[in-house]
Amino acid sequence: MTTLSYVPDDELRRARALQLPATERAAIIATLCRINTLYMIMRAGSGHLGTSFSSLDLLSWLFLEELEHPEVSGHADGDIFFSSKGHDAPGKYAVLIALGLLDFELIHSLRRLGGLPGHPDVGTPHMHTNTGSLGMGISKARGMARARRLLGRAGRIVVLTGDGELQEGQFWESLQPTANGGFGELTVIVDHNKIQSDIWVEQVSSLGDLEAKLRAFGWHVARCDGHDFAAIERTLAELKAVADKPKLLIADTVKGKGVSFMEGTALQPDDRLYRFHSGAPTPALYARSVEELLAHANALLAAAGAAPLRVEETPCPERPVLDGMQRMVPAYSQALLAQAARNSRIVALDADLALDTGLLPFEERFPERFVECGIAEQDMVSQAGAMALQGFLPICHSFACFMPPRANEQIYNNATERTKVIYVGSLAGLLPGGPGHSHQSVRDIDILAAMPGMALLEPCCEQEVGLALDFLVDRHAGPGYLRLVSIPCAVNYALPAGYALEDGRGVALTQGEDVVLFGYGPVLLPQAVSAARTLAERGVGVKVVNLPFLNRVDQGWLHAMLGDCQLIVTLDNHYVAGGQGEFLAAQIAQLGLTGERRVIALGVREIPFCGSNDEVLRAHRLDAASLAQELHAIVERSARV
Amino acid sequence: MTTLSYVPDDELRRARALQLPATERAAIIATLCRINTLYMIMRAGSGHLGTSFSSLDLLSWLFLEELEHPEVSGHADGDIFFSSKGHDAPGKYAVLIALGLLDFELIHSLRRLGGLPGHPDVGTPHMHTNTGSLGMGISKARGMARARRLLGRAGRIVVLTGDGELQEGQFWESLQPTANGGFGELTVIVDHNKIQSDIWVEQVSSLGDLEAKLRAFGWHVARCDGHDFAAIERTLAELKAVADKPKLLIADTVKGKGVSFMEGTALQPDDRLYRFHSGAPTPALYARSVEELLAHANALLAAAGAAPLRVEETPCPERPVLDGMQRMVPAYSQALLAQAARNSRIVALDADLALDTGLLPFEERFPERFVECGIAEQDMVSQAGAMALQGFLPICHSFACFMPPRANEQIYNNATERTKVIYVGSLAGLLPGGPGHSHQSVRDIDILAAMPGMALLEPCCEQEVGLALDFLVDRHAGPGYLRLVSIPCAVNYALPAGYALEDGRGVALTQGEDVVLFGYGPVLLPQAVSAARTLAERGVGVKVVNLPFLNRVDQGWLHAMLGDCQLIVTLDNHYVAGGQGEFLAAQIAQLGLTGERRVIALGVREIPFCGSNDEVLRAHRLDAASLAQELHAIVERSARV
Repeated sequence: MTTLSYVPDDELRRARALQLPATERAAIIATLCRINTLYMIMRAGSGHLGTSFSSLDLLSWLFLEELEHPEVSGHADGDIFFSSKGHDAPGKYAVLIALGLLDFELIHSLRRLGGLPGHPDVGTPHMHTNTGSLGMGISKARGMARARRLLGRAGRIVVLTGDGELQEGQFWESLQPTANGGFGELTVIVDHNKIQSDIWVEQVSSLGDLEAKLRAFGWHVARCDGHDFAAIERTLAELKAVADKPKLLIADTVKGKGVSFMEGTALQPDDRLYRFHSGAPTPALYARSVEELLAHANALLAAAGAAPLRVEETPCPERPVLDGMQRMVPAYSQALLAQAARNSRIVALDADLALDTGLLPFEERFPERFVECGIAEQDMVSQAGAMALQGFLPICHSFACFMPPRANEQIYNNATERTKVIYVGSLAGLLPGGPGHSHQSVRDIDILAAMPGMALLEPCCEQEVGLALDFLVDRHAGPGYLRLVSIPCAVNYALPAGYALEDGRGVALTQGEDVVLFGYGPVLLPQAVSAARTLAERGVGVKVVNLPFLNRVDQGWLHAMLGDCQLIVTLDNHYVAGGQGEFLAAQIAQLGLTGERRVIALGVREIPFCGSNDEVLRAHRLDAASLAQELHAIVERSARV
Repeated sequence: MTTLSYVPDDELRRARALQLPATERAAIIATLCRINTLYMIMRAGSGHLGTSFSSLDLLSWLFLEELEHPEVSGHADGDIFFSSKGHDAPGKYAVLIALGLLDFELIHSLRRLGGLPGHPDVGTPHMHTNTGSLGMGISKARGMARARRLLGRAGRIVVLTGDGELQEGQFWESLQPTANGGFGELTVIVDHNKIQSDIWVEQVSSLGDLEAKLRAFGWHVARCDGHDFAAIERTLAELKAVADKPKLLIADTVKGKGVSFMEGTALQPDDRLYRFHSGAPTPALYARSVEELLAHANALLAAAGAAPLRVEETPCPERPVLDGMQRMVPAYSQALLAQAARNSRIVALDADLALDTGLLPFEERFPERFVECGIAEQDMVSQAGAMALQGFLPICHSFACFMPPRANEQIYNNATERTKVIYVGSLAGLLPGGPGHSHQSVRDIDILAAMPGMALLEPCCEQEVGLALDFLVDRHAGPGYLRLVSIPCAVNYALPAGYALEDGRGVALTQGEDVVLFGYGPVLLPQAVSAARTLAERGVGVKVVNLPFLNRVDQGWLHAMLGDCQLIVTLDNHYVAGGQGEFLAAQIAQLGLTGERRVIALGVREIPFCGSNDEVLRAHRLDAASLAQELHAIVERSARV
């Protein structure tokens, strides 16, 4: 069993109380925060280490020495700090905990229900705005500053951004008006660690001459080493003196700073990917990391004449066993390779998520047909549309939470040209529950369903992934959206032998006469099938139907599936509003049915909770046990009427 | 009656054939094109004069002298030209017609069904991509260039952009990757006329040092007078020699160039607004304009030793009489003033459409609470969210076709903070039909309906506008969306005395037992009421219900409204997918229906047609006569079953 170490509250207090020069104390606190950040992420099983470590020296300095009144969140004239990139949240939590600004016990609940969300949420003290979707920071900061001007309040707004984040159009959209308004209240710090997600920024989409660009927008620009506390202090003091312009500090940092083998600079020339962007390290690497960090902390303490650090130890929670689980994204990788091998019109476009969207095999095999766009979804989608006009079949890739909303107008613009572009949204649906609602995509069906001619599909198992891609490429004339769950799933059903996708149709996975339940995808169908099996034992028959088509249905097939059943349930891994269920209910209402049929919608009804996958399913009452209860209650109510 | 003049085909051919230096011939053609552009817009009753005139010298030169093979649309190695701003389409049509690249007779059908759309559409020859929503041009051009590289084809891509358009984030998002890829195939020309919509760019949201900014992104930048043909020729030749970088030409132009009193430079210091951005001039101003243009053309022809111009004359179509029509936007202006007078938390944000969204009275009365954001919807929405976090009640304004899709993720991000921001989308729905599908907002309900806590309302008359705003401000806790039709509407119903908005409820406008029809808004409810009256004469009773709530309904009220009626029709000024009708059908299916009820959805089912308002309603079968036919057929079919 792996043992995890963290720095307890009293030790954090001891460090804060050390009578030392500010830069030396900050170095100690930052190191303790790295130990605690690592602890939180190991305990959670996921989280963004690399970017938390690159920004931790800056964060520590800001909260210890720079910000005024950070202890009183919302202090009328206090300084506001927030992170625009947001995935450095574990690092910020560690600092807030170290300063006593967050309840210490929260250290044990990163990415857990009721704990600390994977990305910033205003429900947590000292989190001033929700972030996690990139590029919004300066717009938000200017809004805050404008509000404070109207209220006659002082105080600075300090925003931390990533560097990959600077590829987003909104960042540049927000720069000029901020300069035009003379928003000297704003200080933006770019955590310039040079690696975005898993790859060098320079390789993904170079930022060019960043300083020259920012100055050309009328900003005051400074640059310093983001791990040199004296340099940070000096540079921030210089910036404070500039009152009439917004200010931007390019802080040169190292991704994963503080653990030798996690540092981006330790990448070997033939390393394709940086390995510590997100996700917890292996137990072995964890042990090496904490050893290094402890040694460093103790060296700093010894130099300060202080006693060595005492850490608390606790067992690492068991990781779920993933054997035998099905994975949609690798299945997609293979299906795409097969399609691309026989269809030279296919080009694949990516928005800085080639690893997560399964594109690395495609990039390796068809490099000339692979387009890396960086974090620039709008640019990617419009570019794809133009390639379609020139005869190609572009397939755009990103997370389901980002591409459909960020490039919504661009996707529509393409659709009005009546060309064919396929969009693949991975990380779709409520799970994983750890990253929080910025990454839980439960609105993508809604905002794509009305795109003219677009077919939306979500496969329910690896086998159906290839069928769905083939349908979109070979059989559907218009644009398409392939919705992919990214977590490994325990699939407790099998598609029938010889299963083929037929337009607007699906297949029953269980049989039953009391309820017909329509659903899709490998997260909720297994829960529904499990619930149906439970209910079968209690004499309640539930027919669970897999309908991979999210916005189209064959009405004859639908009618046949309904049979004489009076209770119809829809189940969405998505908000109920705008999901497959609402669409199906409307279709059923159009059928003109006899009797006393009722359609009941199950799905996500609240802003998604953050937590472990099991916690989140249960909290939304979408786990097998809750579904069984719910279905049973529906049948009982109906019998009573 | 106003008489319109246009330059006929034979005169255009004579001008093209003149043996003159290229710059002199281009000047003549451009002037003839201005006459024809003015004709098209006067005949259509609307269209973008100012920007067509500012770019016409450039367009004429490009098509006459610069582009290779423009005559063969899609020529493998030909140059591609398109406009990113798109509202200069009338000017481009005039040039294409002058060069014989478009059927001459199309000159009479701007913004008419089957004619020339208000914004570019690939259905028109030589229109290479759909534009009208701003900022997509460079992304599209790079996509085209990338496709051509893969196909081994040559040819340049020339893109015209506006200057206000440069406020859009996507423009900047697309710049750096284009430089990184060394896309020397691209030449971007900025039609820098310094007025965006109706106001100086400098006043709306200054572009700063444009040349420095663009160079900092790695582009080759040149600048010239966009009305000096020799300078245009010389500068484009210089740019042609630069092969390894994308190139951008800032063309200094004058909005409305060619007619003295339409020129932006003729604006007086106390003129608040430029008057010729969109819309047709008055008959008197038209007469003066055409007189000036004719005189100029004849002076140029005389100098060239050619005979004076012969124009054809034709009567101007009658303009619809607007007396007694209701106007939602002015009603909103008044309602907003009243609210703002008693609620100091209200701030109003605008995205370069203060005139069209009815904000000028607010700006005048509460200048400190008015925020002009320019064409930067994402920046506006995130800024508003931050102001809400600081205690304000921000109201964001833009067109319904732009803000909900362009800032979709930002609106959602705000909603997850559980603050209250109100969004007002004007120009909502299928009409006006003239601008074309980029401006026909028939997807906004869909893409906003699943925003957590958001109430969507569309008022059906002036009286209901104020009620709807008051509901969103005073009675609804969450965010809201107010959907406003911008065309004047003939409202043939009245709300009952003492009418008050009740959450999720509406009111019957007609009585009938055969069909209950749910709809909203001042465009389609009058058609439905008119259809109901026609059918009443034939013994068919239709109860038309106004339900201003688009994504919420009181189920008890709904049940009562349905009564025993078996035929339920929904009517959407929106795509059927994701509209109010689909939501209502799903709600009705949840009620548990007895008997043989059927819900039939009427609304927009195709990409909106461009045409006059009457043409467009008829083409979508949503005019009163079509609705009466449709409803009659529904009743007949039902009786037959």
